[in-house]
This record gives sequence, C-alpha cells and structure tokens, in this order.
Amino acid sequence: MPRETVVDSRQEILRTAARLFQQRGYDATSMNDVAAALKLSKGGLYHHFQSKDEILFEIMNHAMEITQERVINPVRGIADPEERLRALIRLHIEVVLSPRDREITVMLHENHPLPPALRKRINARKKDYIHFLENLMAEVQKEVQKTVQKTVQPAQFAKGKVSPRAAAFALLGMINWIYQWYKPEGELQAQTLIPQFTDLIFGGIFA
Amino acid sequence: MPRETVVDSRQEILRTAARLFQQRGYDATSMNDVAAALKLSKGGLYHHFQSKDEILFEIMNHAMEITQERVINPVRGIADPEERLRALIRLHIEVVLSPRDREITVMLHENHPLPPALRKRINARKKDYIHFLENLMAEVQKEVQKTVQKTVQPAQFAKGKVSPRAAAFALLGMINWIYQWYKPEGELQAQTLIPQFTDLIFGGIFA
Repeated sequence: MPRETVVDSRQEILRTAARLFQQRGYDATSMNDVAAALKLSKGGLYHHFQSKDEILFEIMNHAMEITQERVINPVRGIADPEERLRALIRLHIEVVLSPRDREITVMLHENHPLPPALRKRINARKKDYIHFLENLMAEVQKEVQKTVQKTVQPAQFAKGKVSPRAAAFALLGMINWIYQWYKPEGELQAQTLIPQFTDLIFGGIFA
Repeated sequence: MPRETVVDSRQEILRTAARLFQQRGYDATSMNDVAAALKLSKGGLYHHFQSKDEILFEIMNHAMEITQERVINPVRGIADPEERLRALIRLHIEVVLSPRDREITVMLHENHPLPPALRKRINARKKDYIHFLENLMAEVQKEVQKTVQKTVQPAQFAKGKVSPRAAAFALLGMINWIYQWYKPEGELQAQTLIPQFTDLIFGGIFA
C-alpha cells in the first residue's frame, strides 16, 4: 500500500472513532462498533490500532499535531509579538471551528481515562502549548509597555496586573470553550468571532 | 426521616456519584459501584434514585441550583451594572473553585449522553444563565458609553466591537475552563485569579 493511503486510512479511522466516542460515549463504543462504522473487518481495524486506548491516544495526539502544524508553526515566523498573538488567536479559532477537524480536536477536552503513560505524553504536549502562549503574552505585554514608556507619563504606565499565565489560560478557555456553544447555523462564526475575541483580549469588553 | 437528613443524603449521593463518574467514566460506573462507595445497599440507593440517568440529571440540576443560589441571586440586588458584573465574576469563580462543589459543577461540562427530555431541561437552565450574562454585558457596555459620551470627544467613543453575546461566551469559557488547568497547590488561586480575570474582561491583557 502506498504510504499516502495508509496515512489517509489511519486518519479516517481516527475521525470516525472520534465521532462515535462523542455520540455514544467512549466506554459504550466498542472496537466492533468502530470497525462496523468504517465497513472494516475487526482484523482490518486491529491492523492499524491494537486497542481502543491506542485509538483515543492517537486521536488526542493527532489533535495536538494539528495545533502544532496549523497554529504554532505558522506563527513562529512572525517577528512582531502583537501580530504573532493576533495570528495565533485567528488560527486557533479556525482550527476549533474547522468542520473537518472538529471531531478530532474536541476529544482533547474529554477527560476519558487513558493509561497514565499515554496521558502523560498528551499532557506534556498541552503544557508546551500553554508555555508557548504564556511566553508570547509576556512578550506582547513587554512590547506595549516599551511603547507606552516613550509616549506616556510614568504615572500612567500599564500596570500589567494580568499575568501572562492568567492571560494564557483565559484565552485558551475562551477558544477551547467554543465547542460547548457553537452552532453551525448561529450568528457567531469564525469571521465575526475572531475580531471580537481578539479585541477582548487586547482591550476588554469596551474595546 | 427528618427532611434535612433526606436532603443531606441525596446531596451526599450526588457528590459521591459525581466523583466516581469523573474517576472511572460514566459508563464504567455502575449503580452497584455508587452504592458500595456510599456503603448503601442497592435497595437503599434505588430508594433515592431510580437510575444512573436520574443521578446524572440530578447532579447537573444541582450544579445549576448552586449557580442560581450562589451567583445569580446574590448579584440581582446590585444596582450598578459594572458592580454586578464584577460580583458575578468573583462569585462564579468561587463556585468553580469551591472544594465542596467542584465535583458537582464540573459534571455540567461532560457531554455524557442524557435522555433528550432531561438534556433539554439542563440546556434550558444553561441558556437562562447565558442570557442573564449577555444582558448584563449589554448593560455594562451601555453604562460606560454614557459616561464616555459626557467626557470624551465623539471620535473617541468606545466602539463596542465586542458584542454582549461574544463577551458572555468569552467569560463563561474563561471561568468554566478553569477545571482543566487548576491545581490546588498552584500559584493561581481564587484570590489571585479573580482580580486578573476581572481586569482582563474590563480592560484586556494591558489592564
């Protein structure tokens, strides 16, 4: 089998399994159910994945890959910290709302039991993203403070009361929570949501 | 049995069940497991709840009661919209971080399958809270715009680019996401988190 086909069918399995896990619950979905939904034999499925735990881990790992490739990597090249943060907000919201990947990425937030060693690997990748975002927040705040120092009297300096860490968690909460309320037919879509969440992060609700 | 005792033991059952559901997963936890953890006979448990679905529904319903009693009701009496929003942020974060209720309230966000009629009732209560918050955001924005109009030139008016609805979802995301990263031994606790999230909502990351 050419490598492309193998990769495609693995991703196809992960997407189908993710959808079943969300519809029926992880425990209530068997390997047989996954195979049947894919019109695969049980052997065909086990050829790709040896257990349901492995599928769940690979779904979560794939979700982190998507974040790496479509959010982190593209913004790394942006020199200006503020522009980098604006791009990150936009790209992360686009990933979360992507119809193709939504079933995969949403699984990151379900606290299904995963064997400790696998859970640890996912958590390590999540932590890397949080640290990346935390450092970016710190850079943006520092950059703005420099600008402010040049133009404003000392008494009016930005106080920096919101720590980079709290800001990072706040932004992740805003974005990762979208799946809880998002409706494909609703008013709030990527193009309306991205500028509003960006303005809120940069200037609060009075932006 | 005096009414107080009945209520207490129902809440005790809900708390224990919520903890088991989170530790083992909803599907993997049986009514027998719940009864055993409470040192109740299966009959004793069924005296209070007829099914696992009923327990899950009552956990979620109780979580919404807690939100009603400890967040919505106390803030209703606050005349000034900005103060009302500040109080809501503080009280909601306190509920989410309350060691006693955390196991109950976190269950609101697990997308376990619930029979449609019961799911509908929980969703209706969630929607009520979102609308309450959305209206409050609109009031706060309006109030501030009035003040701004008195003191600032027209060109500098707050533009109100963040809609009350997007602001409501953003705040709910920030707060309801806390359970995903919160650590009792971590630096970010209620007293440090409340002012930072409040500042971020009112003024963004440069507040």
